[in-house]
Amino acid sequence: MSKRPLILVTNDDGITAPGVRMLISIMNEIGDVVVVAPNNPQSGMGHAITVNTVLRCNPITVDEGPQLEYTCSGTPADCVKMAVNEILNKKPDLCVSGINHGSNASLNVIYSGTMSAAVEAGIEGIPAIGFSLLDYNWDADFEPSKEFVRKITLSVLENKLPEGIVLNVNIPDLKKDEIKGIKVCRQAQGNWIEDFDKRVSPQGEDYYWLTGKFVNLDNGEDTDLWALENGYVSVVPVQFDLTAHHYIHKLNSWDL
Amino acid sequence: MSKRPLILVTNDDGITAPGVRMLISIMNEIGDVVVVAPNNPQSGMGHAITVNTVLRCNPITVDEGPQLEYTCSGTPADCVKMAVNEILNKKPDLCVSGINHGSNASLNVIYSGTMSAAVEAGIEGIPAIGFSLLDYNWDADFEPSKEFVRKITLSVLENKLPEGIVLNVNIPDLKKDEIKGIKVCRQAQGNWIEDFDKRVSPQGEDYYWLTGKFVNLDNGEDTDLWALENGYVSVVPVQFDLTAHHYIHKLNSWDL
Repeated sequence: MSKRPLILVTNDDGITAPGVRMLISIMNEIGDVVVVAPNNPQSGMGHAITVNTVLRCNPITVDEGPQLEYTCSGTPADCVKMAVNEILNKKPDLCVSGINHGSNASLNVIYSGTMSAAVEAGIEGIPAIGFSLLDYNWDADFEPSKEFVRKITLSVLENKLPEGIVLNVNIPDLKKDEIKGIKVCRQAQGNWIEDFDKRVSPQGEDYYWLTGKFVNLDNGEDTDLWALENGYVSVVPVQFDLTAHHYIHKLNSWDL
Repeated sequence: MSKRPLILVTNDDGITAPGVRMLISIMNEIGDVVVVAPNNPQSGMGHAITVNTVLRCNPITVDEGPQLEYTCSGTPADCVKMAVNEILNKKPDLCVSGINHGSNASLNVIYSGTMSAAVEAGIEGIPAIGFSLLDYNWDADFEPSKEFVRKITLSVLENKLPEGIVLNVNIPDLKKDEIKGIKVCRQAQGNWIEDFDKRVSPQGEDYYWLTGKFVNLDNGEDTDLWALENGYVSVVPVQFDLTAHHYIHKLNSWDL
């Protein structure tokens, strides 16, 4: 690695979102930054990739920072694939995704475009972190996040991450002096209780908005939800080997 | 459970795909079937959900079978949420997704719409299985899959699955008498080597098609790729707690 690491930045709220602009400004102090981010919001895209239509990817200037920026028509995972294969001429030292407007703690990691970009980078062998702030608003205050994003980023550059693991970082929506520190956690058991909002169009057709309420189903004090509810930044190591290894033995006892 | 289980069927290739029609016909012999499937192909959608636009869901008749069918404008995960919350008045005893046209073995589980539907059902507390045949063609021969789909389905109904685990079943593209049996496996380490096919539109703009080649990076003989290459149906227990539990101790040694 040269003195200044090459850092790929992406997100799922789109390249103009305040969260990614803050992330870029933090990363500019740490390394040489290339941004490849979606031109449209991609929240809830999970690990979607674009296989049924074409992708576009073009240089763009959003502000006066030193970073190079590209905007891509695809999903967050597409952006990482595009960056690694078409835009960068060497593998980046780090990929950071976010800062997401809204939580990706607990089960939300599954639906998260932010985390899918980090996972995609991990698949490509790039150390990766997804950052999220627990405030859905466009004008969320990202200032208190700065020192934690910087600290965790520097730690990953220093300590490395093993192959197959990326970090899911969530930051509570608190003032800087209210945040108690950083906690390494496991993903809490939780679930969305969906509530489809059924409406009728002017043409008389039924349609639905997907809404819901997230519930914590986990009493543990070692979870990301516990950490966030108690004023800590949560860090969960996330893997993309989805095998339930502990259940293989039991499955082998079935008469298959 | 009544004598005949209530079975929810979905897929990601769309409600008219031959794979899901075969799956419906098999499930009609086992239970009472309700189909809620996308009206358009959703391959590569991962665990995407629809949050930025509205959903439509309407009854449809595709063939003369006894099943009830609904087609939904969303992703496979949306279909399961819609089925559970708006269409069914009781929790189904089982959810089956597929039969996918193409492999969802190894890392493909991450990108798979088929598996995201099974995972979504698992999240809702419904035993769930995703089935895939290793043949991408629309006119793939699903006949040899029948007995294995039936056997694994009956096993899940009999043995139950614990909360948090669903099955990822892949079937080799072989004649019936060439398939050696069923193997319980772990997810093989593997990866796509992307190759973006760059073209120029009639308007002079660059665009890309995402293409690539899948490579097996795993020498193990206990993996799904090994099983499939050696003539077996692979069954991988899949979990949606993505925490890399074994790495929490190490992360705690970082100066965070």
